[in-house]
Amino acid sequence: MSLVRVHNFSISLDGYGTGEGQSLESPFGHAGDRLHRWFFQTRTFRRMHGQEGGDTGVDDAMAAAWGHGIGAEIMGRNKFGPQRGPWENHEWTGWWGPNPPFHTPVFVLTHHPRPTVEMAGGTTFHFLDAGPEEALRRAREAAGGLDVRIGGGPSTVRAFLAADLIDHLHVVVVPIVLGRGVRLWEGLEGVEDRFRTESVTSPSGVTHVTFTRA
Amino acid sequence: MSLVRVHNFSISLDGYGTGEGQSLESPFGHAGDRLHRWFFQTRTFRRMHGQEGGDTGVDDAMAAAWGHGIGAEIMGRNKFGPQRGPWENHEWTGWWGPNPPFHTPVFVLTHHPRPTVEMAGGTTFHFLDAGPEEALRRAREAAGGLDVRIGGGPSTVRAFLAADLIDHLHVVVVPIVLGRGVRLWEGLEGVEDRFRTESVTSPSGVTHVTFTRA
Repeated sequence: MSLVRVHNFSISLDGYGTGEGQSLESPFGHAGDRLHRWFFQTRTFRRMHGQEGGDTGVDDAMAAAWGHGIGAEIMGRNKFGPQRGPWENHEWTGWWGPNPPFHTPVFVLTHHPRPTVEMAGGTTFHFLDAGPEEALRRAREAAGGLDVRIGGGPSTVRAFLAADLIDHLHVVVVPIVLGRGVRLWEGLEGVEDRFRTESVTSPSGVTHVTFTRA
Repeated sequence: MSLVRVHNFSISLDGYGTGEGQSLESPFGHAGDRLHRWFFQTRTFRRMHGQEGGDTGVDDAMAAAWGHGIGAEIMGRNKFGPQRGPWENHEWTGWWGPNPPFHTPVFVLTHHPRPTVEMAGGTTFHFLDAGPEEALRRAREAAGGLDVRIGGGPSTVRAFLAADLIDHLHVVVVPIVLGRGVRLWEGLEGVEDRFRTESVTSPSGVTHVTFTRA
């Protein structure tokens, strides 16, 4: 059976998965790059974006797990871009340029219809007005027996956790206090009961916490 | 100069320092013992309570730092006991029995006056209606040049952090989602800017995060 996985999901000590005020200039709002510095330094991240170099320690090992055996991704609309409401700008095809790092079908959850967009490198964006169960059914069909990744943002991960659809959750606790934004854990009291957890700290100062379905 | 220190302050992944519904039977409300299991297993905790045994690894080393060079503690009233409003039960002298583990003057912050209580073993509870600065002034006088510990609960630690009076903060992130209770970080956006932070995970699954004034 294919698994449903979340990877490299950074949160602050006060539980925010993104800051306040997402915009074209600030995809994570007032958080800026502070939640993801650990990630930007990894070889995995640099390769995804066509760059050389990068660290190859524990942060990189955790980051690299992101790509193994994934056949499709589901993401929330706010991860795809800063537009809200009906799609007025069809030129927008995500933050990731002409060759996004997914290389699989990607299902973007939105109440507003939009035609499928085929990108270079095997990434295809499908736009889907569906709840978690239905979205997962569609993604599994497209994944050809491989795993499905839930790509975020926080509201999307939270909805799949609430529906008990996640098998593997990797959160990265960054020792900062964001104070405002979108919280990951809202409404998920006791969610750890369904998982075995492990934690490991890296020299970058973050803590990788993995939740594996018990 | 003596330092102002917080030790062994456990929080959940969603930032709660205590659960909802504190009572005589449940000092941490619905959190039960889940925030402090790592601590109960240490030799330091067992010694504080006159018991033998206990683990002596990294959790214990972090826990033991609690007692080194402390001359006075300041605690919030909710740490002292479950009563609210005027002191109707003067029999109540804390959760800790006739010989509390503090062995120093302890200043309990409360708007309601109550005579000083002398306990066995050098612990004296003073009851003080004062803000953080004034309470710290009194505690420093009593500490004889040693450090002052801020003992909690979350509202008290938060007030001292907000007033920028903390030099050393040790929080312990426990991989559970409490969902409700009292949050430590409320109103403390960016507090990490005033500190250097370090993180280390222990085999019990918790992460010790220390904040040292920069």
